[in-house]
Amino acid sequence: MDSAEFLDILGNANRRRILRLLAERPCYVTEISDFLGVSPKAVIDHLEKLEAAGLVESRTDKKRRKYFSIARHVRLEVTVSPYEFGTKSAYPASSRLDLTSCRQLSIELEHDPDATDSGVTASDVEADDVVSLTQALRDVQQLENELSLAQRWAQGRLTELREHLESVLDDDQSRLLANLLLALADEPADIEELSRDVGAPPDVIEEPLSELVAEGIAEENGGTYRLADEE
Amino acid sequence: MDSAEFLDILGNANRRRILRLLAERPCYVTEISDFLGVSPKAVIDHLEKLEAAGLVESRTDKKRRKYFSIARHVRLEVTVSPYEFGTKSAYPASSRLDLTSCRQLSIELEHDPDATDSGVTASDVEADDVVSLTQALRDVQQLENELSLAQRWAQGRLTELREHLESVLDDDQSRLLANLLLALADEPADIEELSRDVGAPPDVIEEPLSELVAEGIAEENGGTYRLADEE
Repeated sequence: MDSAEFLDILGNANRRRILRLLAERPCYVTEISDFLGVSPKAVIDHLEKLEAAGLVESRTDKKRRKYFSIARHVRLEVTVSPYEFGTKSAYPASSRLDLTSCRQLSIELEHDPDATDSGVTASDVEADDVVSLTQALRDVQQLENELSLAQRWAQGRLTELREHLESVLDDDQSRLLANLLLALADEPADIEELSRDVGAPPDVIEEPLSELVAEGIAEENGGTYRLADEE
Repeated sequence: MDSAEFLDILGNANRRRILRLLAERPCYVTEISDFLGVSPKAVIDHLEKLEAAGLVESRTDKKRRKYFSIARHVRLEVTVSPYEFGTKSAYPASSRLDLTSCRQLSIELEHDPDATDSGVTASDVEADDVVSLTQALRDVQQLENELSLAQRWAQGRLTELREHLESVLDDDQSRLLANLLLALADEPADIEELSRDVGAPPDVIEEPLSELVAEGIAEENGGTYRLADEE
């Protein structure tokens, strides 16, 4: 499911209320209809959309009555800023995901025997000890809150740095220049690649690129451009 | 703006396209209308909704023509899982936000002179050096990607731990019990507070709570309950 489909689904208040209810417990159509104060027909319409999107699934009980529950774990992030409208949706990563490749981030969970300073591998609470499991859950919840906080910090910082960079560039084309610089910082690239990265035709970026080279901000070598080294 | 309002706004594909366009550059109504292939009237309707929500603002140029741009930085996170339907929306945190209070997380930005092992304080790139600013921006972008990855990891882990805990509890009421345990792990609380935390009336949680105490999983002291210490 892509972000657009997810946002279309979530753009309806009754569908959000259905998801909130099903996250509490699986329900029959009549229960949802009573809870929402909405006709069973309308509830069925919403459930069909939610099922088609793979968010909700149905089973039948012993009396052959259909009941609904949430099928899938999905996560969506949306960012709106003067420099970005970004949506990301993703299924949760497995616990075997290797976070050690993260360069800027490290995570330390008390109950994680495998945690190292450079990241988290697979934190396994395999014990069937209710107290340990509860504490591990609480730690991961706290980590989640901290990650949200860190992301808000990062987004504010991005805007500040971006505004600062564009004001230093102080040019009619400072937005294009900033995009070019970020593309160059990513990895060395030729004009074709840079053109794709910044979403502008090659002939539009040629001149600003030459200026960046002339000012010693970028370096060119055999048609490949990169950001100059820091002093 | 609350999450529900944000989701209502973003539930429309043309409003998303307008935001995407304005994140590229400020625009006149006619530009937006041409780009979207939608009547100016419809564009104005969408812009009014976006302005009312504080996401978009308008100014007039020298010829008194109105143009629109993105007004505000907003961030939204949505999580759907069998145990949760959660939405969080927030403005970005200021760069002066103190992340050192984070217990599970540490962030290291190369270009941040104030970074310590225990977190990030105010990372200041005050130099007007274009190369340093660009590298700092790229680092924060990379941090953002890592934070997203970490959040996906955390969400997958939460579901695994939750499923594990409920299967160990193995009870008709395992969902209520798990919620009670998480509330107890948070901080010591009396029945009234626990009832609010788990969203169930006091007389419903009394019996499961006594059972947790009888099994040595929770402890009671003068009407206040808490999670027992780990062995």
